[in-house]
Amino acid sequence: MDYQIIETKERLLADNDAAAAENRARMQRSGAKLINLMGAPGAGKTSTLLQLLSRLGGAYAVGVMEADVDSDVDAKAVAAAGARVIQLHTGGLCHMDADMTARGLDAMGTEGLDLVFLENVGNLVCPAEFEVGADLRMMLLSVPEGDDKPLKYPLMFTVSDVLLINKIDTAPIFDFDFDAACDRAKALNPAIEIFPVSAKTGEGFDAVAAFLRDRLLEGRAAE
Amino acid sequence: MDYQIIETKERLLADNDAAAAENRARMQRSGAKLINLMGAPGAGKTSTLLQLLSRLGGAYAVGVMEADVDSDVDAKAVAAAGARVIQLHTGGLCHMDADMTARGLDAMGTEGLDLVFLENVGNLVCPAEFEVGADLRMMLLSVPEGDDKPLKYPLMFTVSDVLLINKIDTAPIFDFDFDAACDRAKALNPAIEIFPVSAKTGEGFDAVAAFLRDRLLEGRAAE
Repeated sequence: MDYQIIETKERLLADNDAAAAENRARMQRSGAKLINLMGAPGAGKTSTLLQLLSRLGGAYAVGVMEADVDSDVDAKAVAAAGARVIQLHTGGLCHMDADMTARGLDAMGTEGLDLVFLENVGNLVCPAEFEVGADLRMMLLSVPEGDDKPLKYPLMFTVSDVLLINKIDTAPIFDFDFDAACDRAKALNPAIEIFPVSAKTGEGFDAVAAFLRDRLLEGRAAE
Repeated sequence: MDYQIIETKERLLADNDAAAAENRARMQRSGAKLINLMGAPGAGKTSTLLQLLSRLGGAYAVGVMEADVDSDVDAKAVAAAGARVIQLHTGGLCHMDADMTARGLDAMGTEGLDLVFLENVGNLVCPAEFEVGADLRMMLLSVPEGDDKPLKYPLMFTVSDVLLINKIDTAPIFDFDFDAACDRAKALNPAIEIFPVSAKTGEGFDAVAAFLRDRLLEGRAAE
């Protein structure tokens, strides 16, 4: 049983890597940058998008692909914030793969865009295994989830370029050791960039927006 | 690509259902009851187990199977509370399936036990799809995750017998509408039993323990 599962998974992952490479080439041709935004259910992915849209949406053209198992809750909120939005339903699947991402890019269209966010399905396991061809992988860990999460879901912290520690305004009421969380993440991934943020109050998002401008949007003329 | 994935998934699910039926028969022979405990990362599954162990562990023999992608953090805490514990590593998989559960039961042994908890991998998607042969499916939703989660992860709420709404002590600081969350869960699953709890303060767990005694442990002589 194990062997069958692993064989299936390896084939799926190999197919996926090829499709991710195609997405990467396609994004390079289009000139837009793709960010894969990942995190557990309720970590604050949509609120984070809204904070970043309010800081980047004026100067840059931003598209958002909202991936959900089965709902349109988030797409409505993000469309109201002025981004070009498309809702993707994974049909029960627990992550976005590169092929589904390509179809989302087809449907949304990347012409004229500077930046595209893929809001992945809320999950700390599977999205880490499936490359979508993003220029940047950004993950959220929220304070109420606990500072031990890098120990329990190590791959997500290992593959992410940026870690936002969200709901930082609630740190006083949860037993969350910020330094311990950072140390555990950096032990897995010394290059990971960490920002404490609150998607509720906006704290910390100026620094995240500045980082994204420097890392991904330099040279693009802000309108 | 879609068709391949679906075909693979259907075969896996059919194999899994057969293995789950074997687990169910085996638990019936052993006399112990199996609870599948599910929830997102950081929802409070381990703290919930500790609250239930302190209320049921004196009168009943309890075993715990801790499923993690890759760590032993939780097993240590639960073993310290006096349960018979086994740590299962899923090797990257995002859920427990029935076959892995059977192997856990083999390794732990169910002789002499009244109750076995399986702490599933933190995930609101995949564990809902894979029956393990449990007598009761118990899920956790924690207040910081938000009251919209039944809309976004409907299958988990549909297949669960019991919903614990955890971290209820933090309701005042999060925009969590308890009644809305209950209405959304009951719209998917009218029979679901809902308990507000706090695994931090212990609030609500006397009622959960009483429910488990009535539902699963009646007729078993408490020692």
